[in-house]
Amino acid sequence: DFLSALEEVKPLFGVSEEELSKCVRGGIMHFSALIENILDEGRLYVDQVRKPDSTPLLSVLLHGPRGSGKTALAAKMAMDSGFPFIKLISPEDMIGFSEMQKVQQLSKVFMDAYKSPLNVVVIDNIELLVDWVPIGPRFSNSVLAALKVLLGKQPPKGRRLIIFATTTERSILQQLDLADRFDAEIAVPNVNTHQELSHILRQSGAFSDQDIARSMNEIQEITGSAEVGVGIKKILTGIETAKQDDDLPGRFARVMSQAIAARGFA
Amino acid sequence: DFLSALEEVKPLFGVSEEELSKCVRGGIMHFSALIENILDEGRLYVDQVRKPDSTPLLSVLLHGPRGSGKTALAAKMAMDSGFPFIKLISPEDMIGFSEMQKVQQLSKVFMDAYKSPLNVVVIDNIELLVDWVPIGPRFSNSVLAALKVLLGKQPPKGRRLIIFATTTERSILQQLDLADRFDAEIAVPNVNTHQELSHILRQSGAFSDQDIARSMNEIQEITGSAEVGVGIKKILTGIETAKQDDDLPGRFARVMSQAIAARGFA
Amino acid sequence: DFLSALEEVKPLFGVSEEELSKCVRGGIMHFSALIENILDEGRLYVDQVRKPDSTPLLSVLLHGPRGSGKTALAAKMAMDSGFPFIKLISPEDMIGFSEMQKVQQLSKVFMDAYKSPLNVVVIDNIELLVDWVPIGPRFSNSVLAALKVLLGKQPPKGRRLIIFATTTERSILQQLDLADRFDAEIAVPNVNTHQELSHILRQSGAFSDQDIARSMNEIQEITGSAEVGVGIKKILTGIETAKQDDDLPGRFARVMSQAIAARGFA
Amino acid sequence: DFLSALEEVKPLFGVSEEELSKCVRGGIMHFSALIENILDEGRLYVDQVRKPDSTPLLSVLLHGPRGSGKTALAAKMAMDSGFPFIKLISPEDMIGFSEMQKVQQLSKVFMDAYKSPLNVVVIDNIELLVDWVPIGPRFSNSVLAALKVLLGKQPPKGRRLIIFATTTERSILQQLDLADRFDAEIAVPNVNTHQELSHILRQSGAFSDQDIARSMNEIQEITGSAEVGVGIKKILTGIETAKQDDDLPGRFARVMSQAIAARGFA
Amino acid sequence: DFLSALEEVKPLFGVSEEELSKCVRGGIMHFSALIENILDEGRLYVDQVRKPDSTPLLSVLLHGPRGSGKTALAAKMAMDSGFPFIKLISPEDMIGFSEMQKVQQLSKVFMDAYKSPLNVVVIDNIELLVDWVPIGPRFSNSVLAALKVLLGKQPPKGRRLIIFATTTERSILQQLDLADRFDAEIAVPNVNTHQELSHILRQSGAFSDQDIARSMNEIQEITGSAEVGVGIKKILTGIETAKQDDDLPGRFARVMSQAIAARGFA
Amino acid sequence: DFLSALEEVKPLFGVSEEELSKCVRGGIMHFSALIENILDEGRLYVDQVRKPDSTPLLSVLLHGPRGSGKTALAAKMAMDSGFPFIKLISPEDMIGFSEMQKVQQLSKVFMDAYKSPLNVVVIDNIELLVDWVPIGPRFSNSVLAALKVLLGKQPPKGRRLIIFATTTERSILQQLDLADRFDAEIAVPNVNTHQELSHILRQSGAFSDQDIARSMNEIQEITGSAEVGVGIKKILTGIETAKQDDDLPGRFARVMSQAIAARGFA
Ligand SMILES: Nc1ncnc2c1ncn2[C@@H]1O[C@H](COP(=O)(O)OP(=O)(O)OP(=O)(O)O)[C@@H](O)[C@H]1O
Ligand SMILES: Nc1ncnc2c1ncn2[C@@H]1O[C@H](COP(=O)(O)OP(=O)(O)OP(=O)(O)O)[C@@H](O)[C@H]1O
Ligand SMILES: Nc1ncnc2c1ncn2[C@@H]1O[C@H](COP(=O)(O)OP(=O)(O)OP(=O)(O)O)[C@@H](O)[C@H]1O
Ligand SMILES: Nc1ncnc2c1ncn2[C@@H]1O[C@H](COP(=O)(O)OP(=O)(O)OP(=O)(O)O)[C@@H](O)[C@H]1O
Ligand SMILES: Nc1ncnc2c1ncn2[C@@H]1O[C@H](COP(=O)(O)OP(=O)(O)OP(=O)(O)O)[C@@H](O)[C@H]1O
Ligand SMILES: Nc1ncnc2c1ncn2[C@@H]1O[C@H](COP(=O)(O)OP(=O)(O)OP(=O)(O)O)[C@@H](O)[C@H]1O
Ligand SMILES: [Mg+2]
Ligand SMILES: [Mg+2]
Ligand SMILES: [Mg+2]
Ligand SMILES: [Mg+2]
Ligand SMILES: [Mg+2]
Ligand SMILES: [Mg+2]
Repeated sequence: DFLSALEEVKPLFGVSEEELSKCVRGGIMHFSALIENILDEGRLYVDQVRKPDSTPLLSVLLHGPRGSGKTALAAKMAMDSGFPFIKLISPEDMIGFSEMQKVQQLSKVFMDAYKSPLNVVVIDNIELLVDWVPIGPRFSNSVLAALKVLLGKQPPKGRRLIIFATTTERSILQQLDLADRFDAEIAVPNVNTHQELSHILRQSGAFSDQDIARSMNEIQEITGSAEVGVGIKKILTGIETAKQDDDLPGRFARVMSQAIAARGFA
Repeated sequence: DFLSALEEVKPLFGVSEEELSKCVRGGIMHFSALIENILDEGRLYVDQVRKPDSTPLLSVLLHGPRGSGKTALAAKMAMDSGFPFIKLISPEDMIGFSEMQKVQQLSKVFMDAYKSPLNVVVIDNIELLVDWVPIGPRFSNSVLAALKVLLGKQPPKGRRLIIFATTTERSILQQLDLADRFDAEIAVPNVNTHQELSHILRQSGAFSDQDIARSMNEIQEITGSAEVGVGIKKILTGIETAKQDDDLPGRFARVMSQAIAARGFA
Repeated sequence: DFLSALEEVKPLFGVSEEELSKCVRGGIMHFSALIENILDEGRLYVDQVRKPDSTPLLSVLLHGPRGSGKTALAAKMAMDSGFPFIKLISPEDMIGFSEMQKVQQLSKVFMDAYKSPLNVVVIDNIELLVDWVPIGPRFSNSVLAALKVLLGKQPPKGRRLIIFATTTERSILQQLDLADRFDAEIAVPNVNTHQELSHILRQSGAFSDQDIARSMNEIQEITGSAEVGVGIKKILTGIETAKQDDDLPGRFARVMSQAIAARGFA
Repeated sequence: DFLSALEEVKPLFGVSEEELSKCVRGGIMHFSALIENILDEGRLYVDQVRKPDSTPLLSVLLHGPRGSGKTALAAKMAMDSGFPFIKLISPEDMIGFSEMQKVQQLSKVFMDAYKSPLNVVVIDNIELLVDWVPIGPRFSNSVLAALKVLLGKQPPKGRRLIIFATTTERSILQQLDLADRFDAEIAVPNVNTHQELSHILRQSGAFSDQDIARSMNEIQEITGSAEVGVGIKKILTGIETAKQDDDLPGRFARVMSQAIAARGFA
Repeated sequence: DFLSALEEVKPLFGVSEEELSKCVRGGIMHFSALIENILDEGRLYVDQVRKPDSTPLLSVLLHGPRGSGKTALAAKMAMDSGFPFIKLISPEDMIGFSEMQKVQQLSKVFMDAYKSPLNVVVIDNIELLVDWVPIGPRFSNSVLAALKVLLGKQPPKGRRLIIFATTTERSILQQLDLADRFDAEIAVPNVNTHQELSHILRQSGAFSDQDIARSMNEIQEITGSAEVGVGIKKILTGIETAKQDDDLPGRFARVMSQAIAARGFA
Repeated sequence: DFLSALEEVKPLFGVSEEELSKCVRGGIMHFSALIENILDEGRLYVDQVRKPDSTPLLSVLLHGPRGSGKTALAAKMAMDSGFPFIKLISPEDMIGFSEMQKVQQLSKVFMDAYKSPLNVVVIDNIELLVDWVPIGPRFSNSVLAALKVLLGKQPPKGRRLIIFATTTERSILQQLDLADRFDAEIAVPNVNTHQELSHILRQSGAFSDQDIARSMNEIQEITGSAEVGVGIKKILTGIETAKQDDDLPGRFARVMSQAIAARGFA
């Protein structure tokens, strides 16, 4: 259930533990084999950086649809690394910053990281950080330029750094000539099948097997399809909305069907 | 009638009561069953946020044509919540503000909200707040970026927040990548049928049944159609213009027909 | 004649009387029945705002071709209202102002208006106020945003306000999403027929009936058409240019024909 | 000859006489009947403004190809008016000015003019004043806006003002919505026929009748046409270049033919 | 092996030795005859500048795909020149600089260089230095202008300067009118054949001949082709990632095949 | 040979002699009859300005492909004029200048020139001075505007000024409405034929007749054409590169053929 899922998150000795654990508020549910694969791949890169005679700098881009769990997974990988310096760079902490202030903040985090032997920097929502807007299009050239340089800048001797970044806009990052500066990419999937969705409902502890069956049936009926294609985040919120209603499985089916129908617009 | 409609608005213990009640100056008339549905849905989200073990942050976008009553309905939902902290963010209070000043003002309201356990923030006319102009197109990137981040920023532990925002430009917000950051959307309809219109005229207390019949006939004649498609706001103003005239139902029919004809351009 | 036309303008007890009367320097000639209709409609809106239990805010857009008399008519309506606070906002008074200074000036006029019970604000040449230029296109976003908000901002309790605005660029204001924020629109026509033109020449006191006949004949001959389509302003200036010439009706016919031919380019 | 042509320019009692006379350095040659017509039309407008009971503000746009003599003719009209206040606004005096400084300078000249009863303001090269560049296109919005307003702003009681402006870019001014704010337009022509060209050569005093005949023949031969289409300014410079050469008529024919050939590109 | 490859880099008497040697961290492997040709050509230009009676200024552009070894080769050429003044200009050292600060920094390096008789300036990642972004497109006009001028500016008497610049965006530099201001260009190739790839694996010391054979086979199988087309940099990182895995040749084949497949997007 | 070619450059009594002579570092070789024609035409214009009763201002645009010798020829004309005030305006001296600083610098040079009776101003690389970049396109509007005005501004009484400007981008200057403000244009050609190329090689003193024959043969073979189309500047640098090689004629042929092949891209 929820609590045991949350327990999977290991303690972190170091900085911004609270902020990181807020990112995995809903735990990490293993609704698909892909989740473990993703975490494995994260561990591989962490271990490569950990080795003293290997590349001192690796950068990994987690990309996927809105709410698919990118931030949670990046935070989990960072916490699991056991590296003493872990820092989260998030647009949330830069509201109202000028471009230059953002660049300075970015710079400062990396300078700090170059002082410790083993470091993780998580850059969340990289497309928001560069103020990307599809209309125009517009973005912050200075922040983009700083990111490009920082992704390629070798740490000083004896310092090692792994960067996890998240984005919903991989193709934009490619157009901005940013995506292919990462050493590796990890695709984070939506919840795609009824089986995966049932797994999550069961783990939530709020649905009886009968409830699950009814919800699944109604979703199938309303959407006329067995595909889900919705992020774990929206599903967890939907479960809570449904709990407000007397008719838990019915309400969940309606909320879910709406989310499934809205996919085309997102 | 008008006064009893106004009485539906419950007293509010907290901040900016006067400003909020100005938003529902014309009361909430139940000219269609949809109005109650909308208010019900608002209550559901308010209750979800109220529950301590549920999502601490929900955002709801009320969208619909100009003058359809979005602001009044959002204000009503906020007042009905009974939450102790209610704040209205409106472009009216930011005339002549620089982009940065707007961002700071926005930020400040949210920071304040994070200090109280249960909060409502109403963001009125979100497309004006971001200075949207279709030509160009132009908009304030900083305000947009701040809104995106604030819509996704989890309140600190123990703080819960519901956001109601209004807009006439849902499709623009989608293009700006803002619309789908809301957890839910509520469509606010125009007054669409002669039956709904008659309901309003009757409630206004200014029209006899005969007046209503005559107005309806003339509107049907002039426009050649039984569709209305005009916002409640313009209808209430039109009633007052008609009151100036000796020929109340005739003048109302003319004013109304003009408004119906202008729909295509709005 | 000119002087008696000028006498139609009633005295004004209040502010900026001189400035307003400069706007109706050429008087208001009743060359067509439409002129009286326009003034009637203005009076209707003024009376609606005057009534204490009615909408406290009304905005009216006077639009029409260059020189058709928009400013004069708006000024006349304002003066005829008898409201104690009348204020003219004109780009003339804002030469060299920055966008922010314009917004502050706008804001100040409205703030002042909110202090008096009954107010008229005339906003002249609204497309110049927002620095509209078709190439680009360009315009002042800040001034536009301020206007949008001010047009919708309810005055405080007990204060009532009517706004008359003028523009040659109604379709631009629509594209800028400004036009449909007005509660009402009034179209101001050109002088369109030879009959209307004759009426004006007669009123001017400079033309004998024979002169008028000759002028009309020549115009018909040169332009090959009975349509005029020129603003009253250009006609009054043309009369004065013709007075310089020995051949009054001939010169007037030439000047007028040029103006008629130039219509396509304006 | 040149000197007698220069003598046509009448003395000026008032300001900036030297600057104005520099503009008619090459005199005003009457190579075509159109020149006198243009000066006549200028006089008509000047006289209209001079009359106390007539329009207190008139604006006239002189437009034509590069070097056709627009500035010289505008300066001549200004000097011939005999008005006590004559002011030349030229981009030459505003090199390196910011947009705001230009607007202030413009404004100041008009404010000064409003202090004297009879005024001429010459605005030279209006397209340069607004920093027009076809690529982009670009231009100074502030200067343009100031010009628009100043062209329509009535002088205070008892003050009268005539504005002469020059431009090579009439169609641009139309696109910028500036051209049709002038009360009148005067087209300044190129030197177009061999007859006109011969007239100028004869007046220059440097060519014998035989030289003229030879030059004309050679130009006809080289260009294969009897059309000239070159501005008076370039012709006067070409005469001087030719004077450097031993073969005066031959060199003039070559220089002239080049200028004629280049017309398409200008 | 790696270490002996690194030893090829000769000691440098002068400035920024550490920074330069960081650029050739992976040594220079001679996986193809082209590598020696490139270094030869570099030597030729260095010698031309060295000669007192020859051109005092030469500029060479090293261009090629991402990670192909441009920076390493430019650094090697600079170190091998034996010139006393060697300076590396890199975007890394200009994070958060304004355009003007970048121009000043650039300028300063060249001014310093003009003080020493024999100088090398390496300008790394020239497209990042001018803040090039394909969307818009955008770039720093000031930095670009400064580079254009500095590439053509003759050093003072007795001073001689060779410039090595690197870029992945040669065609962009051409569009920016920068590429053809270089006196010479050197194309740096990817690792293109299985033979070249095998050479590198052997040199790395981590692969047995059998491992190499297996890796090559699997790559051929997965990609269905004998072409590689990947930069040396990514190959060296890939070797290290593979070393983390129990199945060295298998993991390398997978990593490599991904890189080969991604070529189209870079 | 080179030295005697250099001796053609006459001594200069006045300012910036050193800077000017740096511009003709490679002398002026008479590889084609056109070179003398160009210098003749320059002298003609200089003499026209020298004459007291002639136009006090002439401007000449030297345009041609990159490295064709525009700067050298303009400098030569300036030095040969014998005018006491000669000033070179070059983007080299304005690195990192703001637009306003450039305009001030430009202005200052002209103001200085207006103080001396006979003046030459050389404006080098006019397209760089206005920061022209084809992408966008972008350029400095202020500098462009200043140039336009300065090219037409008559010097004060008794002062005479000739302007020589150089550019590779004549068609751009035309689009920017700058080119046709020059009184005259001079086209500077590339080295176009094998005969011209041979002339240069012979003058260089480094090639025996046999070397020349071999080089020409090989160039013909490699390029398959008898056209050259390369600027004198690149040819002189190529001669020096070839001198580094044991196989002088072979290396020159290769370098030259590359330059010939690259023509299409420049
Ligand atoms: N397998 C999982 N992977 C990721 N998150 C999970 C998983 N199981 C449960 N969660 C929970 O789901 C939520 C995922 O939200 P998260 O913010 O990480 O998504 P996101 O993709 O970063 O969203 P956004 O696109 O808005 O940035 C978290 O609360 C997380 O604890
Ligand atoms: N059922 C209703 N729903 C909403 N408003 C109503 C209703 N009945 C009456 N009203 C009144 O109608 C008016 C609606 O105006 P409101 O400003 O809320 O519209 P709006 O859609 O926000 O307009 P805008 O598009 O200009 O922002 C209010 O005065 C409100 O009191
Ligand atoms: N019937 C009329 N309506 C309006 N103006 C009239 C009328 N009769 C005479 N006039 C005179 O004609 C002139 C109209 O000019 P006005 O400046 O009002 O036109 P406008 O449409 O505002 O011009 P613009 O488009 O330039 O702003 C005024 O001097 C006015 O006194
Ligand atoms: N008939 C004429 N009309 C105008 N100018 C004449 C005439 N005869 C001789 N000139 C001389 O020709 C020159 C015309 O140049 P002027 O600067 O007025 O042309 P312009 O059209 O203003 O040029 P530009 O397009 O460059 O502004 C002046 O020196 C003037 O004295
Ligand atoms: N033959 C070689 N040529 C270049 N680099 C080599 C060679 N052999 C090994 N290397 C190593 O490969 C790496 C090449 O990386 P380098 O940063 O020079 O590539 P780059 O083309 O500049 O990359 P980027 O496009 O990211 O700037 C260096 O570590 C270098 O030591
Ligand atoms: N006939 C010639 N004409 C011009 N330059 C010559 C000639 N003969 C030799 N030279 C030498 O050739 C070089 C020409 O270079 P210059 O810088 O003048 O060319 P440019 O066209 O100005 O180049 P860029 O397009 O880069 O500005 C100079 O060193 C000059 O001394
Ligand atoms: Mg996230
Ligand atoms: Mg509203
Ligand atoms: Mg008006
Ligand atoms: Mg002129
Ligand atoms: Mg590199
Ligand atoms: Mg040059």
